[in-house]
Amino acid sequence: MHLLNAAGSQFTVERATESDVPSLVALLADDVIGADREARALDTYLAAFQEIDSDPHQYLASVRDKDGVLVGTMQLTLIAGLSRGGTKRLQIEAVRLASDTRGTGLGTALFEWAHAFGRQHGATIAQLTTDKRRVDAHRFYERLGYEASHEGLKRHI
Amino acid sequence: MHLLNAAGSQFTVERATESDVPSLVALLADDVIGADREARALDTYLAAFQEIDSDPHQYLASVRDKDGVLVGTMQLTLIAGLSRGGTKRLQIEAVRLASDTRGTGLGTALFEWAHAFGRQHGATIAQLTTDKRRVDAHRFYERLGYEASHEGLKRHI
Repeated sequence: MHLLNAAGSQFTVERATESDVPSLVALLADDVIGADREARALDTYLAAFQEIDSDPHQYLASVRDKDGVLVGTMQLTLIAGLSRGGTKRLQIEAVRLASDTRGTGLGTALFEWAHAFGRQHGATIAQLTTDKRRVDAHRFYERLGYEASHEGLKRHI
Repeated sequence: MHLLNAAGSQFTVERATESDVPSLVALLADDVIGADREARALDTYLAAFQEIDSDPHQYLASVRDKDGVLVGTMQLTLIAGLSRGGTKRLQIEAVRLASDTRGTGLGTALFEWAHAFGRQHGATIAQLTTDKRRVDAHRFYERLGYEASHEGLKRHI
């Protein structure tokens, strides 16, 4: 368990467990863009959780406030690669913080923890994509030192 | 081993082996943007190769022409996740084709194979990022059905 300090409060980060899944899905759904994406049966999410949890290169983070309420999540994947001189990447997906924690510095503290996690595991670059409609998120990531150097392309297969 | 047909010729795709590493690095370096990134000692790349190769969620592809010459590569990573209804993602990194194969349809054939690989492994979305300076690549990915819906953000850690 790791401690984060933000807005004079203490939060914890730890590896998510199966019993967190309903709260994690609720957090993912509590979002303008995510709302209509998260409507599957719990079994589907539990199966996905098992796959994440059994992958040693993945870390699904549960962030809790001092009362133990789940208020944030992000999914980290360590990807070894040949390019850029054999650089290992820290890929960050599915970042979500409860709306009432925004602006408290919790996001910044969480990303600083994530970058330290990446470095500890040999990664030297962090990468993520963010929907072009999330203008507030772009400003947040820019303040964190991210550069929008790439297009993020997706398609269904 | 998988067969690809492009421009009346046959190519093969298979999982890269350690002996491919020097040719793969040469291919990554033969590129306007990649050239100054690939200057590390071979040992560094061999260590990175071992990490990729030992990860069951990764597939580093070597593409060869009918004479056995290595002419292309891409790195595929399967990432299970909770978001979007427990969607598994096929992440595509480090795509490179030898300059004399461009325009032959080999890239399209390789991506069609990659999408089929993703589907066979349960992925329903493919994603990649491409440097904003690679204008030709953007047109290629658009023709393949990719949508530039996201910003691709990176930073050193």
